[in-house]
Amino acid sequence: MRIGFIGIGLMGRPMVENLLQAGYELVLWNRTRAKAEHFSGRAQVAGSVRELVKTCDLVITMLETGDVVEQLILEESVLAEFSPGQVFVDMSSIPPAQARKIAAALGERGAEALDAPVSGGTVGAEAASLSIMAGGPESAFRKIEAILARLGTPRYMGPSGTGQLAKLANQSIVGVTIGAVAEALLLARAGGADLAAVREALLGGFAQSRILDLHGLRMIERAFEPGARSRVQLKDMNMILAEADSLGLDLPLAAQTRGLYRELVQAGFEGLDHSALLLAIEGRNQLDIPEEGETPC
Amino acid sequence: MRIGFIGIGLMGRPMVENLLQAGYELVLWNRTRAKAEHFSGRAQVAGSVRELVKTCDLVITMLETGDVVEQLILEESVLAEFSPGQVFVDMSSIPPAQARKIAAALGERGAEALDAPVSGGTVGAEAASLSIMAGGPESAFRKIEAILARLGTPRYMGPSGTGQLAKLANQSIVGVTIGAVAEALLLARAGGADLAAVREALLGGFAQSRILDLHGLRMIERAFEPGARSRVQLKDMNMILAEADSLGLDLPLAAQTRGLYRELVQAGFEGLDHSALLLAIEGRNQLDIPEEGETPC
Repeated sequence: MRIGFIGIGLMGRPMVENLLQAGYELVLWNRTRAKAEHFSGRAQVAGSVRELVKTCDLVITMLETGDVVEQLILEESVLAEFSPGQVFVDMSSIPPAQARKIAAALGERGAEALDAPVSGGTVGAEAASLSIMAGGPESAFRKIEAILARLGTPRYMGPSGTGQLAKLANQSIVGVTIGAVAEALLLARAGGADLAAVREALLGGFAQSRILDLHGLRMIERAFEPGARSRVQLKDMNMILAEADSLGLDLPLAAQTRGLYRELVQAGFEGLDHSALLLAIEGRNQLDIPEEGETPC
Repeated sequence: MRIGFIGIGLMGRPMVENLLQAGYELVLWNRTRAKAEHFSGRAQVAGSVRELVKTCDLVITMLETGDVVEQLILEESVLAEFSPGQVFVDMSSIPPAQARKIAAALGERGAEALDAPVSGGTVGAEAASLSIMAGGPESAFRKIEAILARLGTPRYMGPSGTGQLAKLANQSIVGVTIGAVAEALLLARAGGADLAAVREALLGGFAQSRILDLHGLRMIERAFEPGARSRVQLKDMNMILAEADSLGLDLPLAAQTRGLYRELVQAGFEGLDHSALLLAIEGRNQLDIPEEGETPC
């Protein structure tokens, strides 16, 4: 099986490395060609997306936004190269509706499309321990499951768009839980408790979470260099609430959390880690109000 | 060291069992005397709280509410029995202000008081794996740390009231995280995703929490028999927000979550597990609105 991989960025590069080490034949394409040529000698570098699609059984994309995926894949001359039996997997994080639109367009060409965003970040990409959430035709998922397993743990979520939906569910829990931890630590601090001891005690009970562990520590140490940036978490919260809205759903805690991220970004902290949500809640309480644009860490 | 233990209920009974197995000499008191007499032959049963306080070096309480602790311990003839060097540990979950009041009253008698609530429930009490959050004079904590270690993992949080404050921080994170998980699962379900697969995928990433693991499963299976009851979680949320208010703190996510628990209890689901918060969010969205008083499990 010949695999085409489009998007050799922070995530794509270690993913390509893992596929090469598993012995797969790869064809690469990247807008900045040099990033693809990092692998020259070990993988072929395609002259165009069209050429890549024409010659690969499986096409994988790992790109910044849904619009970039659309521009590259739904471009008329590229789309025309997709043929029956071919599988397309978009591993970027994009809105579910856009994933369904791309899947429908490829379906008309007889190709099968999966949306398969990941969580775990660059660390997970390097360790091949990504959590991979796949939506689309189950037959296509089974066909390429073993390949995805070289990148992490793939799981089948349901029809087109549900991979992206699971990713949004993930981001929503992450955002709201960061808020939950920030409020609890503020309360404990205001009453004079030793925050390091509180965090340790709470990790031993029902309040345990990876967020309390990692982001709780960041809050206590006020270590807000990113990590995942606040502006990206705000973009995710917007995507979550847009999707909820289109499904006719009211999600009060996610909406409240989006409001707090807006305040954080408006105060000039868009470049800090998403655990800096603590600053927005402090700001509401007029505690340690930081100067606009000043990083407190 | 002679230990007096007051409150031989669901939590107190296995705690007494663990102290007896560690070889300590115990004196017990319980309003319903039969519950203390369960241990007769292995521990002494006191005729009154006064008698217990008079004859023990360390007095532990594990009771329902702060008012019960006050009634029993601050009663004039009981309080008069406390003497310098004696240690009092209240392991009940009560408001921090009440804990500070009790500590001050005992301090006037020369005794040292700790507030040391626990998390981990009856399972943790039986397994001696409770997370114990202690506030009060550090010297008193060090004096009895080894005894508390027979019940779980004791940690020192800071001055009087901070043990209770840490417990409130715990309950706040639990409540808000339940809301975060409920909203995310509702979103995933509305878009047609397989919830069991979503939960499994999310447990592998940053959205991981003990709440997603245990309460998320309850939500998917709609298995809402308690566990910890919704009305107790609402009581906790009220205590959290009252404490925040007295500290001049605005906690928007905790306040929003309290509102959802109010709706749940008002809809007649006060006896269900706190993971039933899902029903309140469904109610807001007019999904599966359950009949008043009807249990959906």
